[in-house]
Amino acid sequence: MKLDLPVFEDVVAAAARLEGMAVKTPVIESPWLNDIAGGRVFIKPECLQRTGSFKFRGAWNFISQLDANENPGGVVAYSSGNHAQGVAAAAGIRKLPTLIIMPSDSPAIKLANTRALGADVLTYDRATEDREEVARSQLEARNAILVPPFEHKFIIAGQGTTALEIAEWAQDNDVVIDQLLVPTGGGGLVGGCGLVFERKLPGAKVFSVEPEHFDDYRRSLEAGKIVSNPTTTGSICDALMSPSSGDLTFAVNQSRLAGGLVISDDEVRAAMRFAFERLKLVLEPGGAVALGAILSGKRDCKGKHTAIILSGGNVDHGLFASVL
Amino acid sequence: MKLDLPVFEDVVAAAARLEGMAVKTPVIESPWLNDIAGGRVFIKPECLQRTGSFKFRGAWNFISQLDANENPGGVVAYSSGNHAQGVAAAAGIRKLPTLIIMPSDSPAIKLANTRALGADVLTYDRATEDREEVARSQLEARNAILVPPFEHKFIIAGQGTTALEIAEWAQDNDVVIDQLLVPTGGGGLVGGCGLVFERKLPGAKVFSVEPEHFDDYRRSLEAGKIVSNPTTTGSICDALMSPSSGDLTFAVNQSRLAGGLVISDDEVRAAMRFAFERLKLVLEPGGAVALGAILSGKRDCKGKHTAIILSGGNVDHGLFASVL
Repeated sequence: MKLDLPVFEDVVAAAARLEGMAVKTPVIESPWLNDIAGGRVFIKPECLQRTGSFKFRGAWNFISQLDANENPGGVVAYSSGNHAQGVAAAAGIRKLPTLIIMPSDSPAIKLANTRALGADVLTYDRATEDREEVARSQLEARNAILVPPFEHKFIIAGQGTTALEIAEWAQDNDVVIDQLLVPTGGGGLVGGCGLVFERKLPGAKVFSVEPEHFDDYRRSLEAGKIVSNPTTTGSICDALMSPSSGDLTFAVNQSRLAGGLVISDDEVRAAMRFAFERLKLVLEPGGAVALGAILSGKRDCKGKHTAIILSGGNVDHGLFASVL
Repeated sequence: MKLDLPVFEDVVAAAARLEGMAVKTPVIESPWLNDIAGGRVFIKPECLQRTGSFKFRGAWNFISQLDANENPGGVVAYSSGNHAQGVAAAAGIRKLPTLIIMPSDSPAIKLANTRALGADVLTYDRATEDREEVARSQLEARNAILVPPFEHKFIIAGQGTTALEIAEWAQDNDVVIDQLLVPTGGGGLVGGCGLVFERKLPGAKVFSVEPEHFDDYRRSLEAGKIVSNPTTTGSICDALMSPSSGDLTFAVNQSRLAGGLVISDDEVRAAMRFAFERLKLVLEPGGAVALGAILSGKRDCKGKHTAIILSGGNVDHGLFASVL
């Protein structure tokens, strides 16, 4: 099957659709973090985005283009919780019926917020059930359309608007960025970012950052083909436990990424604490991995200009308190 | 004694000095908060400011104008912790010796961060000692200059740059603001905001927000003269327990404020939880009072455009965890 690859212009079109709908999140600099990094670090806090993660961007870019008459059954999505909320918010704005299929062990705050946004939620067992199969049967029953978490050009292009805002900020502030670190699950966000950086900041290197045991992107880039993770559970980073890259995201990312970084759960916790103490931002584990990569020295930042995306902040009270 | 009153142009001059030194914090909107308020709310998160509160603005505006040759003994300040960090950071940039006099019951994070910024810290007992007297003896011993927490035109003007950024944002986004709610201790921040709004948004009303038992501003505005608080301890809002307004800040505020709002410690805690769950921002108690005023319905926001300042995020791990 021929892949319908996104291009840079799709990101520009997505940015126009998101104008006034998504939060144009700021770029923040922290003297504390610069000191540790030994260079300037530009922080893009997508935890401040609508629904608490970047996922609203792709969801709205996809859902705003649906024809409500052609999709009376509304939308279905599977997600550990951030795509869930992005889809629920976007579909809610368009008043489309929404069903979200979520792992039963999703953080309570993600389950509650998804429901609060007006979606129906169906849970499944992450260890024993295949979410794509659960979705397929629901799609047929409801005559609905699937909003994929990453495997669609509109989703990738929507997420890429995050990097477009970084690139525009850099231009406005006469800053040259040397590298970008991006939390990576299925590869939608990092894929959109790669498209933007290739055009707007072609000298910069883009890296995926993954949690230990879920470093399929790093290994796939090294192997030159998609490899899967050996397990589907067990990381503190609930948002980044995708089984593997999609064909589309891998095609987008393979030629554009400079490599993959991996950090441990303890390094993630340290990054969440740093964000609390120094940045005053609430990060969920998966949202903290790029920060963790800098704090733990996984990537040399000395004398460099490094941009990082803090991809989400939907974390339960109990987990957050225990991390502190 | 004739008061050296700040004017709007002092705020503009302060903004020029702060360019590239302070974070230009964003203005954020939350659909969740808009729903509760029944109108649009524009959030200015100064917890994202350098040192985790707006206080760096006034401190840098004051300290950047000192002549290092005339002040070999450096600077002294008294503060419960946010002004402390602002002064320590600003004086550190100028490499001036710095002594901060802090209550012994200051949050540990504020004590630790102030020291980490290179300042010497001297603690005193908030209940039995007078901080101004402690400062006086230290100033003489060190031949240093005092950086007052609010009672100086450079301090008030520096804090006012917060409102200048709100006004510029409103102009850029074609938004008319109806009212501004500002966390208030000694009245420096709200004073600078009043100066800006009088010129840039003259139709808007500016309100102080204080914690229960420390509502001297509300009572002073009603009495038409400065009244003190009956106590110097006992609120969760450590940053807002100033004994009373200063003569200068009261002169600035008396004619410009529309009134004072008061909220309870429980309402403050609820606001901190809301910021964690929905805004993904870490707020200290005093930084959450304006948000609390909206959530608890202390000010009618229906159909209105309300701006609020979240003034700081320096809160201890333990307190934050217990609030969650």
